[in-house]
Amino acid sequence: MSSPAVGARAADGVFDGLREDIVAGRLTVGERLPSEAALAERYGVSRPSVREAIRSLQALGLTRTRTGSGTYVVSDRPALSLGYGDFSPRDLSEARPHIEVPAAGLAAERRTEEQRAELVALCDRMDATIDPEEWVDLDSRFHVLVAVASGNAVFARAVGDIRDALSHQSGVVNLIAHRREPSSREHRAIAEAIGIGSAIEAREAMRAHLGAVERVVSPLSEPASRD
Amino acid sequence: MSSPAVGARAADGVFDGLREDIVAGRLTVGERLPSEAALAERYGVSRPSVREAIRSLQALGLTRTRTGSGTYVVSDRPALSLGYGDFSPRDLSEARPHIEVPAAGLAAERRTEEQRAELVALCDRMDATIDPEEWVDLDSRFHVLVAVASGNAVFARAVGDIRDALSHQSGVVNLIAHRREPSSREHRAIAEAIGIGSAIEAREAMRAHLGAVERVVSPLSEPASRD
Repeated sequence: MSSPAVGARAADGVFDGLREDIVAGRLTVGERLPSEAALAERYGVSRPSVREAIRSLQALGLTRTRTGSGTYVVSDRPALSLGYGDFSPRDLSEARPHIEVPAAGLAAERRTEEQRAELVALCDRMDATIDPEEWVDLDSRFHVLVAVASGNAVFARAVGDIRDALSHQSGVVNLIAHRREPSSREHRAIAEAIGIGSAIEAREAMRAHLGAVERVVSPLSEPASRD
Repeated sequence: MSSPAVGARAADGVFDGLREDIVAGRLTVGERLPSEAALAERYGVSRPSVREAIRSLQALGLTRTRTGSGTYVVSDRPALSLGYGDFSPRDLSEARPHIEVPAAGLAAERRTEEQRAELVALCDRMDATIDPEEWVDLDSRFHVLVAVASGNAVFARAVGDIRDALSHQSGVVNLIAHRREPSSREHRAIAEAIGIGSAIEAREAMRAHLGAVERVVSPLSEPASRD
C-alpha cells in the first residue's frame, strides 16, 4: 500500500522532472512524452499521479495531449502570466511590501479577538484542504483580512483592489513552485505575531513571506520582461 | 489704492483673528460679532474682506448669520471633519507616506516627458488660480498624477481610491491653516525632483510635503479622537 508513491507530492515530482526537461531542452518542442506507463515506472508513481502532472504541464501551456496519439511538447516556456487584470507581476512585487508590511504591524496593535480567531481559522483550513483552488482562495482572504484588521481603510481598500491578482498569482506560483506548504507556515507565523500583538514580529513575518514569494516570482517573470 | 488691505490675504487676517477669539473663548457661544463696519475698521480691511472671512467662519460651523440681526457665535470648535467618505484623518495620515513616498521615487525614474510637463503645468495653475475650489482640485490631480507616473498600477489605484478624501481634507486645511502657498511650493519641489529624475529627492520632497500636511492636520483631528 505504500508503493508506488501517490497523491499530490508524487505528481509534483513528475511535474518538476518533465518541466525541467522541457525548459532545459532535453525534451524539445514537437517531441512526444513517454507513455503514462513508462513515466509511472521511471518516477515510481501511480498512473493517476502521472496524469495529474501532465494536467499541470498543460495548465502552464508546455504540453498538449492529442486523443489517441499522446502528449506533445508545444512550448519550452510557461505561458501563464503572473500578473492579472490591471496589475503586472512588477506592480505587485513592488507595491505589496509598502502596503502589507505596515498593515500587518497595525493589525498586531488593533485586531479584534474575532479577527485574531479568523486568521488562525484560515491557517487551519489552509493546512487541511487538499483542493488547490480553495487554498488559493484562503490565501487571498488571509491577506485581505490582515489589511482589514489593520483598522486602516486605505490599506484595506488597496489590498481589496488587488485581491483577484493575488489569487491568480498564488495559483500559478503553487502550480510551478509548490509553495503551498512553506506558504502555509509563513501565514501561520504572521497570524501568530498578530495574535500576540507584536507589531515588530508581524511586520517581520509579513516581510519574510513577501520576500519568499518574490524569490519565486522574480525569475518566473523574467522572460516576459525581456519582450 | 493700497489701503485698506483687500483680497484673500486681508480676509485671512480677519478670519484668523475671529477664529482664535472664538476658540479661545474671548467670543463666546451665543455672542454677536461686531458689525461689518467695526470689524473692517479694527482689522484695517475692506467690508468685502470681512464678509469673506465671515463666510469662512460659517463654513467651519463656528458662526451663523441671521438676516437683519447680525452674525452670532454658534460653536467654539470647527465642525468640519478632516476625513471623507470611508476614510478617516488617521487612515490618510497613516497610509499616505507608505504609498506616496515610494510612488514619487518611482515616478522620478519612470515618468514620461508628457507626465513631467503636466506636473509642472499643474503647479503653474496652482500658483495662478485665485479660486480655492480649483486649487483643491489641482492638488488632488497632482497627487494622482505622481502615482500614475510611478508606472505602478497598485499605487495609482490606491491614490485614485482616496482622491475625493484628499480633496476634501485639502479644502478644510486651506480654510483653517492657509496652507495654499507653502503647499504650492512643496508641490513644485516634488515636480522638479521628478523632472530631473532624482528618486531620492522626489521621495524626500514628498515626505516633507506629507509631513507638513500632517503637522497641520494632527492637532485639528485631536478633538474628534477624544470622543
